[in-house]
Amino acid sequence: MNLKTIYASLRADLSLIEKEMELSLCTEEPILFQTSKQLLKAGGKRLRPVFVLLSGKFGDYHIDKIKEVAVALELIHTASLVHDDVIDDADLRRGEPTVKAKWNNQTAMYTGDYILAKALERITLIESQEAHITLSETIKEVTIGEIEQIRDQFNWDQNLRSYLRRIKRKTALLISVSCRLGALVSDVPKHQQKHLERFGYFAGMSFQITDDILDFVGTKAKLGKPSGGDLKQGNVTLPALLAMSDPYIKEKITATLKNKNTNEKELNEALHLIKSSGAIECSENMSNAYLHKAQLELSNLPACKARQSLEKIAEYIGKRKF
Amino acid sequence: MNLKTIYASLRADLSLIEKEMELSLCTEEPILFQTSKQLLKAGGKRLRPVFVLLSGKFGDYHIDKIKEVAVALELIHTASLVHDDVIDDADLRRGEPTVKAKWNNQTAMYTGDYILAKALERITLIESQEAHITLSETIKEVTIGEIEQIRDQFNWDQNLRSYLRRIKRKTALLISVSCRLGALVSDVPKHQQKHLERFGYFAGMSFQITDDILDFVGTKAKLGKPSGGDLKQGNVTLPALLAMSDPYIKEKITATLKNKNTNEKELNEALHLIKSSGAIECSENMSNAYLHKAQLELSNLPACKARQSLEKIAEYIGKRKF
Repeated sequence: MNLKTIYASLRADLSLIEKEMELSLCTEEPILFQTSKQLLKAGGKRLRPVFVLLSGKFGDYHIDKIKEVAVALELIHTASLVHDDVIDDADLRRGEPTVKAKWNNQTAMYTGDYILAKALERITLIESQEAHITLSETIKEVTIGEIEQIRDQFNWDQNLRSYLRRIKRKTALLISVSCRLGALVSDVPKHQQKHLERFGYFAGMSFQITDDILDFVGTKAKLGKPSGGDLKQGNVTLPALLAMSDPYIKEKITATLKNKNTNEKELNEALHLIKSSGAIECSENMSNAYLHKAQLELSNLPACKARQSLEKIAEYIGKRKF
Repeated sequence: MNLKTIYASLRADLSLIEKEMELSLCTEEPILFQTSKQLLKAGGKRLRPVFVLLSGKFGDYHIDKIKEVAVALELIHTASLVHDDVIDDADLRRGEPTVKAKWNNQTAMYTGDYILAKALERITLIESQEAHITLSETIKEVTIGEIEQIRDQFNWDQNLRSYLRRIKRKTALLISVSCRLGALVSDVPKHQQKHLERFGYFAGMSFQITDDILDFVGTKAKLGKPSGGDLKQGNVTLPALLAMSDPYIKEKITATLKNKNTNEKELNEALHLIKSSGAIECSENMSNAYLHKAQLELSNLPACKARQSLEKIAEYIGKRKF
């Protein structure tokens, strides 16, 4: 099972969306032209557009209408990644140099701003005020999530709740909104919209937990960036959080990872401690629990090809190895 | 003549807008709460809300409707200043430490994002699609202007046209849009909206040129930040551009100001060269020319108290000494 097979039925519509993204980011300003090209080249799974389109299939699906939602959401996501890389001081994403690495922090800041502005242009083309309100609320929550991430860096005393709230804002919300708005602009019945929205939320939580696990167990070749980055940056994710329920591990980690100046050897020791603590398996269980909840939401929806695809995608993103 | 006198008739509505800005930026997230409070405390002339309100006075003025436009525009402006300070590496603005100085670049980036997101929330409350399209277009142009500013830093070979295009995007556009949207939501007749929009554009150009002059001739006490900052940051503004039409001055400046590492003595020499070249007076003439065009636009509008106030504000911002 791979994404390509699941995406097959959407191929034409997804390539239209890719073209629209290119069109949206096309500009005469040479720096923005280059940074945007770099971002489009690095690509991504285009998960948010896929969720938008598949959710739309439960109603009155019109590609010309729904594509605006898909493009806007993917642009918002892309903008947030560019700004994320400034915070995380990340040099690689999806195997490609980040904007902040290839240019600098300032350029990354404005590239993010520009892409967000282009998302807003797209949003004006959506005629539903409910969609406008949802999108502005979402952008706000995403930025609060990003501030929380800075605030909580190198804070080894945080609890599970603050982690879950952070990944909700960082990831689950945008996926949940993708499902909701795809359904909304396609006039899917209200109660089905709710199930799709909740499905997106649970699938998004599972997705981010898996992402956080992969940062510990993945390889650079598969991740497109070095592993262990989260711990190095002081981003306390689920595996570290669970491992630190052991006071010995917590003491070790807080002692060696006080700030960004940890050396490679110390980092590797900390990574090893966490990986051998059982925290990875425990995190996988949590990811699976969210996945299960996501699938339950789907079971309330009419059995159709779109539902089958959503089931498969959720399964894929919750259990993927890269 | 000072702004306070001109603002007198708007006092109640402006303090409502100030309260709404506070409400908008109020958040439980402690860092954002602090950075927002710092920005509100630093205040500003609130020029954009004033232009919105006065333009609305030519039509069917409803404070509950027009305030959304005023707050949204001032929030967009505030967000762009926070990001500007990252680019300009500025430690002071309006006599107060900037967010990037009191916290750091990352926090400034997200504070800007957050304020922009709050502006978007406000925009959803405006019911005109024309207003939405105009605002998203404006945000896009402002970000392009900011990228242009980075791109053109330390480029001593740029021409007058690129300077004018940059300040249009940086300043004139938002003031022009303030006038236009204030008029639009108050159902001011179309041809009057056009005059107000053009008035805002010309007044904004005059305003920014004056700002750029003051960066050369102002004092730290009056500017709320050290003078000479533009030249030091490699921002080529009108006085420098005009002075460099003298090949001797150009050679001197390009030789000493190659990058941000210029020492104080060299910077002062360069500042002196520009100030004694006649470029300041020439820049003032250009500012006045724009001011004159702004006043001409107003002469096409019905003579009323709002028109009088706009005339005075334009006069003030084009000729202010701080």
